[in-house]
This record gives sequence, C-alpha cells and structure tokens, in this order.
Amino acid sequence: MRMYDLIMKKRNGGKLTKDEIYFMINGYTQGKVPDYQMSAMMMAIYFVGMDEEETLHLTMAMAQSGDMLDLSAIEGIKVDKHSTGGVGDKTSLTLTPMVAACGVKIAKMSGRGLGHTGGTIDKLESFAGFSTEISTDQFIKNVNEIGISIMGQTKDLAPADKKLYALRDVTATVDNMSLIASSIMSKKLAAGADAIVLDVKAGSGAFMKQEADAFALAEEMLRIGKNAGRNMMAVVSDMDQPLGNAVGNALEVKEAIATLKGEGPEDFTKLCKALGSCMLVLGGVAKDEKEAESLIEQVIKNGKALDKLAEFIKAQGGDKEMVYHPELLPKANMIAEVKAEAEGYIQKIVCDEVGICSLILGGGRETKESVIDLSVGIILEKKVGDYVKPGDVLAYIHYNDEEKKDVCKKRLQEAYVIGDLTAEKKNVILGMLK
Amino acid sequence: MRMYDLIMKKRNGGKLTKDEIYFMINGYTQGKVPDYQMSAMMMAIYFVGMDEEETLHLTMAMAQSGDMLDLSAIEGIKVDKHSTGGVGDKTSLTLTPMVAACGVKIAKMSGRGLGHTGGTIDKLESFAGFSTEISTDQFIKNVNEIGISIMGQTKDLAPADKKLYALRDVTATVDNMSLIASSIMSKKLAAGADAIVLDVKAGSGAFMKQEADAFALAEEMLRIGKNAGRNMMAVVSDMDQPLGNAVGNALEVKEAIATLKGEGPEDFTKLCKALGSCMLVLGGVAKDEKEAESLIEQVIKNGKALDKLAEFIKAQGGDKEMVYHPELLPKANMIAEVKAEAEGYIQKIVCDEVGICSLILGGGRETKESVIDLSVGIILEKKVGDYVKPGDVLAYIHYNDEEKKDVCKKRLQEAYVIGDLTAEKKNVILGMLK
Repeated sequence: MRMYDLIMKKRNGGKLTKDEIYFMINGYTQGKVPDYQMSAMMMAIYFVGMDEEETLHLTMAMAQSGDMLDLSAIEGIKVDKHSTGGVGDKTSLTLTPMVAACGVKIAKMSGRGLGHTGGTIDKLESFAGFSTEISTDQFIKNVNEIGISIMGQTKDLAPADKKLYALRDVTATVDNMSLIASSIMSKKLAAGADAIVLDVKAGSGAFMKQEADAFALAEEMLRIGKNAGRNMMAVVSDMDQPLGNAVGNALEVKEAIATLKGEGPEDFTKLCKALGSCMLVLGGVAKDEKEAESLIEQVIKNGKALDKLAEFIKAQGGDKEMVYHPELLPKANMIAEVKAEAEGYIQKIVCDEVGICSLILGGGRETKESVIDLSVGIILEKKVGDYVKPGDVLAYIHYNDEEKKDVCKKRLQEAYVIGDLTAEKKNVILGMLK
Repeated sequence: MRMYDLIMKKRNGGKLTKDEIYFMINGYTQGKVPDYQMSAMMMAIYFVGMDEEETLHLTMAMAQSGDMLDLSAIEGIKVDKHSTGGVGDKTSLTLTPMVAACGVKIAKMSGRGLGHTGGTIDKLESFAGFSTEISTDQFIKNVNEIGISIMGQTKDLAPADKKLYALRDVTATVDNMSLIASSIMSKKLAAGADAIVLDVKAGSGAFMKQEADAFALAEEMLRIGKNAGRNMMAVVSDMDQPLGNAVGNALEVKEAIATLKGEGPEDFTKLCKALGSCMLVLGGVAKDEKEAESLIEQVIKNGKALDKLAEFIKAQGGDKEMVYHPELLPKANMIAEVKAEAEGYIQKIVCDEVGICSLILGGGRETKESVIDLSVGIILEKKVGDYVKPGDVLAYIHYNDEEKKDVCKKRLQEAYVIGDLTAEKKNVILGMLK
C-alpha cells in the first residue's frame, strides 16, 4: 500500500477502506508517512469529505494509536462528558460532582487551557494542593470509592490525533466536520467511558459559529460514538455570550460552587441540569430526563452535590475547606468597574474579547510554558438583553496589574454592544440530541 | 504575510495576489515555507484552481527563482521548442538542425530521460564524443557561428519548479492544468528564447490522455507565454501510438537522420514539418506556414538539413561521420522478430508498453543513476490501421540480453491489439494553435 495512491483515491472522490485508513494513521504516528503527504490528504478530505464508515475508521484508528484506557475495574456505568469549549465554560466543575452525587461514576480525563478559553485542570488547581497528576490505579480507586475522579490527559492518549491536529492547525485543514468529530471522539473513545454526553457550543465564542454547524457536529459525533458501541447524548448550547457571569479560574470555581448550592446564574444552572440529566439517564440512574432533573435538584438542595465536590477535592490532595469557604480561594488584589457609556439594551457581548481580556490579565496561557494567575478575571454584571443607562456597571475586572486592567477596561467596553432594539434573552439550551 | 493565511484564502476560493505568490514561491525555494504547507496549498489549488493572472505570476515567480538565461548576445530571433513528451519522440533531433538550416537560431536546453520516455541528450550521446556539458559562453558562440546548440539544463534553472514538482509528484497534485502549464513554462521562460513552439501530445502514451485536455494545456501555456511577452505557437499531436517507428536511443537517431534526408516515417516527418513551420514563422524566416514548409522541403532535398546536424554534432565534440554513416552508430548484438498471432487490423498499440519494453531492454533509466544501453530498442514494423496475418512481423527487438528480450516479446505481442474492425489511420497533427 502506498500513501500516494490513497491521496489520489481520496482526491478523485473515492472512499478509503478500513485497512487504508489504519495504514495511513499508523504510518503517520510512526513517522513513516511524511507530513507533506498527510497535509495533502487532509486538504483532499476537506474538499471531498468522508462518509460515516470512513469517519468511524479514522476515529478508531486514532483512538487505538496509543493507550486505550481500561475502566473495567470500575463497577457500574462510566459516563464521560465533553464540551467543545468556550468562554466561561466551567461546566465540568459543577456537573461532575453533581452527577456523582446522584450515583453516576465519573472517571474523566481533562486538559489544560491554551489560548483564551480556560482548562478544567487549571481551574481546579485554584484549590490549594489539588492535583490531577495521579496514577491510573489511584484514579480507578478514587472512582470506586467516592464515585468521581479527574486526571490529566496521559501523553499516550490518541497520539495520532495530537500529531494530526497540530498539522491541520498549520495547513488550514481544521474545519471539516468529519475531521473535527473524529479528533474529539478519538480521545473520548480512548478514555474508556461506556457512555458519553456531548456539550456542543454554537455562536460567536464557539468553534462552530453557526447553530446548524453545531447541530451537524453533534450529530456526527453521536453517530461515531454509537457506531463505536457507546451510549451517546448531546446538548447543543449557546456560546454567543460567555456562559454564566464569571470568566477566570478562581472566579469560575466560585461560580461553580455557588451553582452547586443552587445559587448560580440562570443560564449556567440550566445547562448543568440539562447535561446532568443526560448523564443520569445514560448512567442508568434515572429513567428519563424529568426524573433525572428532580434527582439533581435534590442533591443541590440537600447539600450532597457540594459535599461530593469537597470529597473529590480532598481525595486528590486539595483543601476541601475552600469548597465550604470560597472566600479562601485565590483572590485578586484589586477590582475595577467597567461602566456603560450609552443607554439601551445589550445587543451582544463579543465573547472572544472577554476571554482574551482574562488572558491579558494573566488568567490564561499564551504558550504552553506560561504561568497562570488563578486569581484574576472578569465578572459580567450585565448580559445580552439587559437594559443599561450610562454609568451602570457592565462588569468587574479582578486584577493585579494596573496597566493590564486599563487595556481590558477599554476592550470590555467595546465588547459590549449597546443599542436601541430590544434584545431577546437567548435560551442557553439550543437543542438536545439522542 | 503568513503561508497559513494564503492556504486558507485559496482553500476558500480566493485569488492569490502577485505579492502572495512570490512570497510563497520564494519562501518555498529558501526552505522557509515547509513542504507540508506547500502540499496543502497545491491540493487546494487542485480543487479551486488558479486564474490567468495567478498562473502567470506563479510561472514568473518560479522562472525567476534561479538564473534567467540571457541570450541577448545571440543575434536574431531565438526560437525554442518544447514537447510534453512521449514514446518514440525524437522530434528535437530532426527538427532543430532542419530549422537551423533554414536560418532560425536554435539555442536550446534539454534534459535527460527518466522512466519510459527517452531524453534528447541521451539520444544525442549516441554520437561518439558528443557532449552537452558546455559552458554558456560556448553555447552562445556555437549558436552565433553555426546557428544551433543544445546544452544540458543548468542546475539553477527554475529551482522552485524542480522542488515543487518533486513535492507534487508524491502528493497527487500533479494533474492540474495551471500547475502543469506553469511548471513547463517557468523553465522555458528562464531559458531565454524570444519565441516558443509547443508540441503538446494527446493520447494513451501522453501525459494528457484526452485530446480536449491537450488542447486546454496548449492554450494555457500559450496564454502564459504571451502574457510573459513571448511569441508563441502550439501543435497538438497524437500520442495514441509511438511516434515514428523507432523507440530506443541509437535507433531513434537513425530514424531522425533518415527523416532529415526525406526518408523518415510519414507521421514523424509530418510532425517535424508542422513544428518546423511554426518555428520558421516565429523566427521571421517565413511569412506563413506554407512558405515555411517549402523552405523545409528544400533543406531536406539539398542536404543542408543533414549537413547542419553534422556541423552541430561536430561543434559539440561528436563524430560527424556517424551522421553520414548511421551504420557506425551503436548497434545491438541481436535482433528478434515479434510476430502477429491473429489476423485483422491493428486497433491499438499500447504506447507506454512499448516505452517500458525499451526501458527493460536497457535503453532507459529506472533511477537517475542508471547507465543506458544506447544500442537497444524496438522498431515497429506495423502501426495502427495496418492489416496483419498470423506470422507477420509486428516489430523487431534490438537486444543484448536473451532474458530481457523474452520478456519484451511477450509484452509487445500483448501491446498490439488486433481486431476485425477497420481501424482508421489517425492524423498525427490534431491541431495547431496561435
């Protein structure tokens, strides 16, 4: 078999067989297929596409290119969750203890953030002493004992995907539905859960700007997961403005804690409940979403959700007192107000700008080596649809550096688009797919 | 400027500017743009295409990536000729002395053969002592003194094209009209002639299998040449069967000599006259093709064409006696007959198979390092449209190795397709474009 012939076949509209796809992916992982042939193939796929079978084979080949996590030592149904990411997306922090408190086993791998959206691990490190660098044995032990554990992604999880994504990233071959879906799903399948709930974001702050594209991606991933024998559900959610009010590591943790106590922002709470319901249903704990939602409301009300977070943090070396006393979490030295300069309805909050401001303040990584300031960030006081007058506070900047604050203040003011039209409050849940 | 953005632009259907194309080609030549980005770009161009301006800029950028040959020291109009190549294509051998004998200056660069089609330089080396490794000064001196010289391609002629072609060759991005045309034309433009006559082959033995594609390529190259300020003409010719009867280095030289004396095969003679007429017209020696053809017939009749070949061979160190006594040229030790096994009309001669047989016999290079046996090859006794009976000789194999001969005999027998239908004798000239 020659890679050249495979490129030619795909370029001419052909369908790659399972053997061909494994040949290509294994060869690429081992360095036998050079980058320049792979990038030509990716561009051909961009134009020609891949069908359902090809996409499944690609996903499986990438999943199997490294370690496949074996979670069989954990009793019960293991449910994983994946979000395509966005600004202010602290969903995992609230969702996983909430669901674990209801009895679903959470054995999750997470990553760090790069660029203007934060990573779950970074956020969790706001708890002093907390670590995700635990062994697989410890991970499995924790899940069995307390029902929840989150570990950092092992290096050998779908290495083919890692290498291929890096190549696609510099050759303008990222945005193809099959390639995006297979990239995400290869890691999820390798991570070993029995069931997976997807949170696919749509809007200006998401990878998928258009709602239709987000639905298409959700469907594609659902199809792959099902074809790979996993139980799947997906929620398509809004990312036209930041999720919740907090953006920044410790600030998001505080909001996550508040939400676990039933005191979180409406949109964020709603999304956690929707995703949680799916996880409870797939985990076999509830017979339908309605029953699931009432179980979730119970664990919020009786404090078990919050207790589960504390147990989880403690089990991985973190200070559980911070869960009950969030005022102990990292705190920025200063807070500045961002005020409205015009009167009207907030039409839009340019999502990426808010994320970039958090990055500028020191809350994110520009390169892999950057050290994060966990304390800084932004609290949005007003969101799309709110009515404001000049002088009203739009947002608060939590900062440690005057100069950076000044830059952010200006950018945030511009990120808020105020106009005369009544702007509709958008529902955070755009749809649910099974 | 970033290569990534250029790939994205082209992928999304955009048009690259002159600056962008030069940035890309210069960067690639200097190794600043990596192969993997260039191959993704080539695949995007394969799907999206390039317009007339982009194609011109690409051609010029590649032509200017190395030395641009300065032929201004040669008086008069310098006319070059390019053939897209095929089996039995010894056109340059006959055409250049024929045209030079009529007074058109021939300052030509040629290449060696690779694969199953031979190169002009290899064929010319059948003349003992002949060399194309001459200095540019000697080259120009020869053209000024005797009106003709052929030199080997310098290393620095359009290096961008060389590098890019090698990449396209392994990434299935060769067959795009703009890319093919710009590759050929970049070298031709760098080679410095004032006027260029193109011989674009069409048919099973040519790069362009379909006549329509050959015409499209001819038009594309004509357009580039004209846009670059050169005078251009093109002939589209048949390569559905080998050109003439001889395939193999010294055998082709003998056929070229015969043709210069007016004793060559009909199809080959016709093509030489057609291309020669274009060259005479562009060279300002004849006012139209009709006048040109009669001038060519004169130099064939009065022996000046043959004498010009002898002068040319002598000027570059070759044994000119071989021109007048072709029996002195390299000769294979043995000759075998390939006989028809069925009765009927020859429907088809699988062109590439004949070329491959010559290669197998030792007449071509499988790799750059192969040493060629100049004496071996095939003489086709019958061509498409001829009627044969079992036992009739289809072809002669000139060989030095029994085993290789046996392989070729079998393959040649299969290359001849004999059937009941009357097969039409195809005209070698399919069209002429100005």
